[in-house]
Amino acid sequence: MTLEETMQKIRPVDAAAMAAAKQHWDGLGKPLGSLGRLEKALIQIAGIQRTGDVHIDRKALVIMCADNGVVEEGVTQCGQEVTATVAENFLDEKSCVAIMCRRAGTKICPVDIGMAVDTPRVEKRKIAYGTKNMAKEPAMTREQAVAAIEVGIAKAEELHAQGYEMLATGEMGIGNTTTSSAMTAVYLGLDVETVTGRGAGLSSHGLQRKIHAIKQAIAVNQPDPEDPLDVLAKVGGLDIAGMCGLFLGGAAQQMPVVMDGFISQVAALTAVRLVPECADYILASHVSEEPGANILLKALEKDAFLTCGMRLGEGSGAVALFPILDFASDIYHKMSTFVQADIVEYQPLD
Amino acid sequence: MTLEETMQKIRPVDAAAMAAAKQHWDGLGKPLGSLGRLEKALIQIAGIQRTGDVHIDRKALVIMCADNGVVEEGVTQCGQEVTATVAENFLDEKSCVAIMCRRAGTKICPVDIGMAVDTPRVEKRKIAYGTKNMAKEPAMTREQAVAAIEVGIAKAEELHAQGYEMLATGEMGIGNTTTSSAMTAVYLGLDVETVTGRGAGLSSHGLQRKIHAIKQAIAVNQPDPEDPLDVLAKVGGLDIAGMCGLFLGGAAQQMPVVMDGFISQVAALTAVRLVPECADYILASHVSEEPGANILLKALEKDAFLTCGMRLGEGSGAVALFPILDFASDIYHKMSTFVQADIVEYQPLD
Repeated sequence: MTLEETMQKIRPVDAAAMAAAKQHWDGLGKPLGSLGRLEKALIQIAGIQRTGDVHIDRKALVIMCADNGVVEEGVTQCGQEVTATVAENFLDEKSCVAIMCRRAGTKICPVDIGMAVDTPRVEKRKIAYGTKNMAKEPAMTREQAVAAIEVGIAKAEELHAQGYEMLATGEMGIGNTTTSSAMTAVYLGLDVETVTGRGAGLSSHGLQRKIHAIKQAIAVNQPDPEDPLDVLAKVGGLDIAGMCGLFLGGAAQQMPVVMDGFISQVAALTAVRLVPECADYILASHVSEEPGANILLKALEKDAFLTCGMRLGEGSGAVALFPILDFASDIYHKMSTFVQADIVEYQPLD
Repeated sequence: MTLEETMQKIRPVDAAAMAAAKQHWDGLGKPLGSLGRLEKALIQIAGIQRTGDVHIDRKALVIMCADNGVVEEGVTQCGQEVTATVAENFLDEKSCVAIMCRRAGTKICPVDIGMAVDTPRVEKRKIAYGTKNMAKEPAMTREQAVAAIEVGIAKAEELHAQGYEMLATGEMGIGNTTTSSAMTAVYLGLDVETVTGRGAGLSSHGLQRKIHAIKQAIAVNQPDPEDPLDVLAKVGGLDIAGMCGLFLGGAAQQMPVVMDGFISQVAALTAVRLVPECADYILASHVSEEPGANILLKALEKDAFLTCGMRLGEGSGAVALFPILDFASDIYHKMSTFVQADIVEYQPLD
């Protein structure tokens, strides 16, 4: 489907299915609401899947891998060659998130949506060999941004057709906290300093260079905050565009899509600005250490489940949520009701 | 071992093993410290196990089940009979935390340390058929408190001897947020109102009765804040005493012990007040919705990993942490170093 068709296909989640899930939780033999966000997550997923019979057993992580021309401004500690090396490592079970996916029973799908070099093993859906340097010109054309979103949409459709029931979003791309901070500053009208952090571990001098490059990118390109595609094309990245497509495509296919940290959240905000109903298909996972992460969670009105101080990216925070959702799903399906458990229903005394 | 012997056996954690674990993390092919609390947890456990070769595969949850005489003051929505029913259900895989333990590969060990009735299947280590009503007299004698702590110590020793490497603490006992709030108010010198919540879901009238009963218990018994055994005996519970023993016994056996929510945290604070070195053997899991939970985490100087809004008890929050620690352990043992991953080590640019 094209972006246009996908946007038109996204419907509000199903209130009746959510009510059925809520009623099911309330009948289980435990204090009302005592599983907190675990209950709320399953209720949300019932609305997404349009049935109280929620299933989230088959899960996949899509990792959008792309390079960013702005790296030539010295905003990162390592060069673009690392993007390709790490992307290849995702296919071996010795990289961080690959090890997590194995433990969590999650399919891992790295996608080359715009790496500066070609790799032999990563699925190739390349829109460009990296973006342009946004400090000097637009990172990409509007057409490229749309094409990258459509890669994400296609990936969501493909995984849905293969029977996957839930998606996690991940990324790999040296320089992508720089683009994410630029987009966040533009969307929310905030100072660049407020939404810019040290990424993988920049020095104070590096952080100053990063802030300067972002300010320059915004000054040179003048992205329109009311036009998400303009923001994405001018000061975004192909990885962010691809993840935006996963959120939109997931929503169109009635699949819950889990956000990772900062970079994934800015992709989610882009999707929600394009289609507000998309918000109800998105779950938060963790609060990353990047300063923009908490700001974006508030803008998206989402609560995180995990506060582990992670800042690795790759989808690691999103995959970390999966066992928690598995607990919720197991309890939802297997726990006794008050009657089965031989307990009188908890009643508020007065 | 007796309480006295156990207290003498607890040593500081091993700094050299912690340094070795830190060094191992720093050599893995990812930005330094980017797994946040997951890295810190494994470093702490290395100190506890006194080796950089950390193992936490075999895990057990001990659920201390006991009744509280203060229930006759109308501080709960349901009667003491529920304690025994739920305790029995732990042995079937239809109760909440039993379902979670199955998913997490965790042994579940409910212990009758003081239920008001006998049950056929729950392991019996009963100190009393419930405590006395603390609003009128001490909940138990000092000797009973020590005996209950020693049940926890014995349970930790037994599980250690069986090869278990990590413990989680849980409880079941109608009325035990009332005792926990009383102990917290006494330990920290806080207003009863500040540390008292609705437990399983009290009405506003019920909450007022609960606060009144706690104030009365403190006024009648005058527990000495500097004497943890006095606080525990006079306004505590047998479940809390048993969990206190798990923390002390776990520390003596060099096992990490995971706190659950509010009730478990007050047991942990009791253990730490008895033996300050015990603190380094304790891991936090989640922030429960009870108002005292966050206050106790601060008093214990522990950070939680999960903010899921859970308030179920039974050890459910502690068990929810186990898959997160499993991720950390898998990555620690299986991830490539920079050299193996063919990446130049991330260096701060300057």
